[in-house]
Amino acid sequence: MFVCTGFSTGAADQPLGLAKINRRDPGPRDIEIKIRYCGVCHSDLHAARNEWGNTVYPCTPGHEIVGEITRIGAEVTGFKVGELAGVGCLVDSCRTCSNCKDGLEQYCENGFTGTYNSPDAHLGGMTQGGYSTHVVVDQDFVLHLPENLDLAAVAPLLCAGITTYSPLRHWKVGPGQKVGVVGLGGLGHMGVKLAHAMGARVVLFTTSPGKSEDAKRLGADEVVISKNAEEMAAHATSFDFILDTVAADHDVNAYLGLLKRDGTMVQVGAPEKPLAVSAFSVIFKRRNFAGSLIGGIAETQEMLDFCGEKNIVSDIEIIPIQMIEEAYARMLKSDVKYRFVIDMASLPEAA
Amino acid sequence: MFVCTGFSTGAADQPLGLAKINRRDPGPRDIEIKIRYCGVCHSDLHAARNEWGNTVYPCTPGHEIVGEITRIGAEVTGFKVGELAGVGCLVDSCRTCSNCKDGLEQYCENGFTGTYNSPDAHLGGMTQGGYSTHVVVDQDFVLHLPENLDLAAVAPLLCAGITTYSPLRHWKVGPGQKVGVVGLGGLGHMGVKLAHAMGARVVLFTTSPGKSEDAKRLGADEVVISKNAEEMAAHATSFDFILDTVAADHDVNAYLGLLKRDGTMVQVGAPEKPLAVSAFSVIFKRRNFAGSLIGGIAETQEMLDFCGEKNIVSDIEIIPIQMIEEAYARMLKSDVKYRFVIDMASLPEAA
Repeated sequence: MFVCTGFSTGAADQPLGLAKINRRDPGPRDIEIKIRYCGVCHSDLHAARNEWGNTVYPCTPGHEIVGEITRIGAEVTGFKVGELAGVGCLVDSCRTCSNCKDGLEQYCENGFTGTYNSPDAHLGGMTQGGYSTHVVVDQDFVLHLPENLDLAAVAPLLCAGITTYSPLRHWKVGPGQKVGVVGLGGLGHMGVKLAHAMGARVVLFTTSPGKSEDAKRLGADEVVISKNAEEMAAHATSFDFILDTVAADHDVNAYLGLLKRDGTMVQVGAPEKPLAVSAFSVIFKRRNFAGSLIGGIAETQEMLDFCGEKNIVSDIEIIPIQMIEEAYARMLKSDVKYRFVIDMASLPEAA
Repeated sequence: MFVCTGFSTGAADQPLGLAKINRRDPGPRDIEIKIRYCGVCHSDLHAARNEWGNTVYPCTPGHEIVGEITRIGAEVTGFKVGELAGVGCLVDSCRTCSNCKDGLEQYCENGFTGTYNSPDAHLGGMTQGGYSTHVVVDQDFVLHLPENLDLAAVAPLLCAGITTYSPLRHWKVGPGQKVGVVGLGGLGHMGVKLAHAMGARVVLFTTSPGKSEDAKRLGADEVVISKNAEEMAAHATSFDFILDTVAADHDVNAYLGLLKRDGTMVQVGAPEKPLAVSAFSVIFKRRNFAGSLIGGIAETQEMLDFCGEKNIVSDIEIIPIQMIEEAYARMLKSDVKYRFVIDMASLPEAA
């Protein structure tokens, strides 16, 4: 075991601050990463403030982790000290259930181990996330990063990227398809970039007319102001697939009605309150209302390779870790284009 | 044009009664059927009482029609006078849109012609349904009936049968799968019989402990009382597919949580109020909440052939047409096992 530095909170109503974090010494199959950047996901804020009611304190958020490998265990293969590496939302799973065997560790039947706020089988207590100088992770949950991309802007691919990539792939989005993306935030802007790169015609739905130009820059072929009933009606029964990234309550029937027969709308944002789905919305064209959670490790690697090949990164704003509370406040107002990323050089090596 | 007898209503608050109905003389591609039996679907009641707000009066309900062919047009092929024939919910569609070309006339992009309460392209006014002595229908929308089954009990296959058969087939229900059916009414009892005949392990969900024995007689391997939280929890994350036939408001999340990863729950009942679907219910196991509407003509024929082969009919209670209002009242109380069928011999030939 060794001690490193992190930015943690001890209670729902306390701001994050400098803290000591215990990490295990790398075992035979472990990789130690010196963290260079960590993306700021809305889940970090939910956890820090116990908004899902399951936070065990102290809690160190962060699951969009990129950095350099500093130590590896004797049995590690395929990774070398000095290489870039990434860690996303998962650091372990049972590896034996049918979902794990299918490479879908995010749906592990015995519960995956989250990068933070999950029971830590090695040290006891809870796992501590990437708002930290170092992390130690089993090699099976470490990702190779493309060398040609801006490292800081790669970080959000580990959550926002894979969360949107996975459903686009699972439901086979590609050329000749018309694909909608609802909401232009951290997830939505990745959805637009990825669906565009997969060759689909992309329509971005937003409530903010001010986002039109930016959406087109990111890869949208068309922007629909979702409050405009006439604009919405013009797209009735025309979409193959819609990716809904909105985490607030909203009228999903307005979007379901835009799907073709057998079309699917996938929820990746998670509003607290149940969504009102009209049976008629799904019955009349045999439509699907589905959900999707992050992605498996193999698919995350596939996504990173795809982004390397297509030169796709997240649009980010880099902050020092001392600005995390301000970043949370701005995130709540959607005042970020489109993801905050913490420069870990701002975090002192010793607390 | 000729005049036949029907049982119709002239307003939402009037009971059905004897009426004259105009039918077209069979054109070159038409088939005239002397109706022997007509099933009583909940939609009939919705239409008679204008509960969907779109009824044009006078209205003659009925879309589970079986009888004998009495006349055919010169260009009719594959049907002969004297043969049994059936008509379901559809009597025409545009035949040119992609859904019609895919044999999915029920999703016709230009709107299918319903057996009743749809604009009648031949006579003007609205189509009039199967509570009648005769019906004249284009051969492409007439079904062959298996000769080995009880004719009266075949009638409900034309709506209740195909409405449950189509989603079971579309989502590939078969041996080795665990399939749930929610609700044991007209649709639910057909869902149990058909899913069982397709080789699935069938679990029937009901709020009524009294229905257990009957559900098992119909083909359910297990019955779960849905109000019993412990019984429900024992089935968590174990179903491949769930067919939800409940048309009243109910908690769909309780069932979504019983689906395996990538499982699908399909709504065929249509509650008036939107259903509350938790995003978490679909996100955590990439579950699908979908809908399905009746079935196409080719698939309806396939279903009838399947039922002939497997000896499947509906469980019915035969009534004279004069008891239709009483039947509606009992249907509203779920006091029928499991479908009323009108014996059209009770309807006078002349009004």
